[in-house]
Amino acid sequence: MIIKLDHIAMAVKDLESALKPYTEALGLTVSKMEEIQGQQVRIAYLPIGDTEIELVEPTTDDSGVAKFLEKRGEGLHHICLEVDDLKATLTRLKAQGVRLIDEEPHDGGKGKRIAFVHPRSMNGVLIELTEG
Amino acid sequence: MIIKLDHIAMAVKDLESALKPYTEALGLTVSKMEEIQGQQVRIAYLPIGDTEIELVEPTTDDSGVAKFLEKRGEGLHHICLEVDDLKATLTRLKAQGVRLIDEEPHDGGKGKRIAFVHPRSMNGVLIELTEG
Repeated sequence: MIIKLDHIAMAVKDLESALKPYTEALGLTVSKMEEIQGQQVRIAYLPIGDTEIELVEPTTDDSGVAKFLEKRGEGLHHICLEVDDLKATLTRLKAQGVRLIDEEPHDGGKGKRIAFVHPRSMNGVLIELTEG
Repeated sequence: MIIKLDHIAMAVKDLESALKPYTEALGLTVSKMEEIQGQQVRIAYLPIGDTEIELVEPTTDDSGVAKFLEKRGEGLHHICLEVDDLKATLTRLKAQGVRLIDEEPHDGGKGKRIAFVHPRSMNGVLIELTEG
């Protein structure tokens, strides 16, 4: 069962300059910044209501986000849905023929377990699932 | 001031087939469907927590969403932020050098007043603002 929209992620080339329009113009605030070495990214978290916007900057040239930027430029990268039982959700999606990028949960940001669903099964939208 | 994330919009070619993975596989439910003639789109609303996902299908070949699909294919199209005072927000953004698509609020879906901010000022992300 889906509980909430955990976050929306935007791929950006440079975190500090990308934060300006979101903080100075729109008035959002950064609650935390962290580097996730496993995903080769640096992330700024901007809470909004019961969800948040994440600005994601690649830290290497061959990370998934770096390749996205090269191919499509800056913009919306993925959305993340919080589910009550990640393992059970992945099993159910697979049984329904949904293509998974990660068949098993792995460590994501903020110490949460995550898995990605392939955009080909979701009308071009990369979807991350996380357990709350 | 930003109150919440009102919705995330995904551009899809065919609403009925696009709904399947979101409802049958992920278990989201459609609260409403409507056609907005001014924007030449048909929208399905899928609530999730205090926000919602909108699947947006173009109803003409020359609408903004039809052109997006032609250029980039299906995927995340824009996000919408609810603000307390739309007119004041637009004035403030313009004063700070943010490029606006709509300098004045106009009618959007569900009878709300809306305006779009240009993605060139927001790191490639098309942002809609709405007054709650």
